[in-house]
Amino acid sequence: MKISGRNKLEATVKEIVKGTVMAKIVMDYKGTELVAAITIDSVADLDLVPGDKVTALVKATEMEVLK
Amino acid sequence: MKISGRNKLEATVKEIVKGTVMAKIVMDYKGTELVAAITIDSVADLDLVPGDKVTALVKATEMEVLK
Amino acid sequence: MKISGRNKLEATVKEIVKGTVMAKIVMDYKGTELVAAITIDSVADLDLVPGDKVTALVKATEMEVLK
Amino acid sequence: MKISGRNKLEATVKEIVKGTVMAKIVMDYKGTELVAAITIDSVADLDLVPGDKVTALVKATEMEVLK
Amino acid sequence: MKISGRNKLEATVKEIVKGTVMAKIVMDYKGTELVAAITIDSVADLDLVPGDKVTALVKATEMEVLK
Amino acid sequence: MKISGRNKLEATVKEIVKGTVMAKIVMDYKGTELVAAITIDSVADLDLVPGDKVTALVKATEMEVLK
Repeated sequence: MKISGRNKLEATVKEIVKGTVMAKIVMDYKGTELVAAITIDSVADLDLVPGDKVTALVKATEMEVLK
Repeated sequence: MKISGRNKLEATVKEIVKGTVMAKIVMDYKGTELVAAITIDSVADLDLVPGDKVTALVKATEMEVLK
Repeated sequence: MKISGRNKLEATVKEIVKGTVMAKIVMDYKGTELVAAITIDSVADLDLVPGDKVTALVKATEMEVLK
Repeated sequence: MKISGRNKLEATVKEIVKGTVMAKIVMDYKGTELVAAITIDSVADLDLVPGDKVTALVKATEMEVLK
Repeated sequence: MKISGRNKLEATVKEIVKGTVMAKIVMDYKGTELVAAITIDSVADLDLVPGDKVTALVKATEMEVLK
Repeated sequence: MKISGRNKLEATVKEIVKGTVMAKIVMDYKGTELVAAITIDSVADLDLVPGDKVTALVKATEMEVLK
């Protein structure tokens, strides 16, 4: 299955912090830290644990540019 | 000035395609292609051109995870 | 592959309108019209055409509630 | 009052989970589960409770497509 | 009808630029320029024209902070 | 450094509520209350405290219009 979201970064999960509703997923991508805020249900559904190889997905309209 | 958005990727602009309202900014980040969809006004305001060193910015809540 | 985005709606593509950068994807989901604005590159990458069976994906943080 | 957001799904609230800042709103839409992550202030402001008839709202730019 | 989105700014439409899919809505809010990128269908549906009194709506999760 | 996000509102932090993952930042902007939901890491990184002069940033694609 292909996804319309344009930005796909192959990363490794480093840390997961779970709140009541949201969870912070810290990932390493080629030496750069990525942070996603997803629901704790997503963490359970994907059975995410540190060390997992994952893809960080970002829709093009959600990416800003700084110069 | 610091930004709350957690994901900052130092990239190089490869290509810019401008429509009437939106523009596609294709960037290279450590060998991975990134695509941002921003307004053409932003392209003018930042005076973006291919070859520019930029930062791609993504808020943590806008990043999904696939596994 | 599983996706953290919580909202997945199995829909049928009804109409595609392409601009220079963005495209409008009109879909039918159980009798309700859905509209996604994605990049034209995504349309080409997914080879989207009217009649396609697709999944409309929405991250939980991107969904508002009205009452 | 009309809203520019293109996707409006008439749903029923099934479950509400509140954290310190965010809340998870689980809804049923024609047999499909929808999940929104909104602030707990929004839950109070809308006086949301299970059983409520609501509209789930998604801006077109926030909807991805999978095929 | 109440909306979960927390940020509602009463503004006046100054300019509308329409592309094939997206439209730029430039608004004045207490002397500050606001810019929304919505679909041209939304512009037609809301019958938006310069001079209109509108509300600019932003979900809390879509607002970043700079300091 | 310039940012592609089009909407920049000079505001004052009034209140900060921190959960395990997310934080609510309540700001005053010319008499209107703004609310951002960012990660608690962002609050620490920006060393945000009530009374701070900040900029609330919103990408044009994340702003809806009501009429």
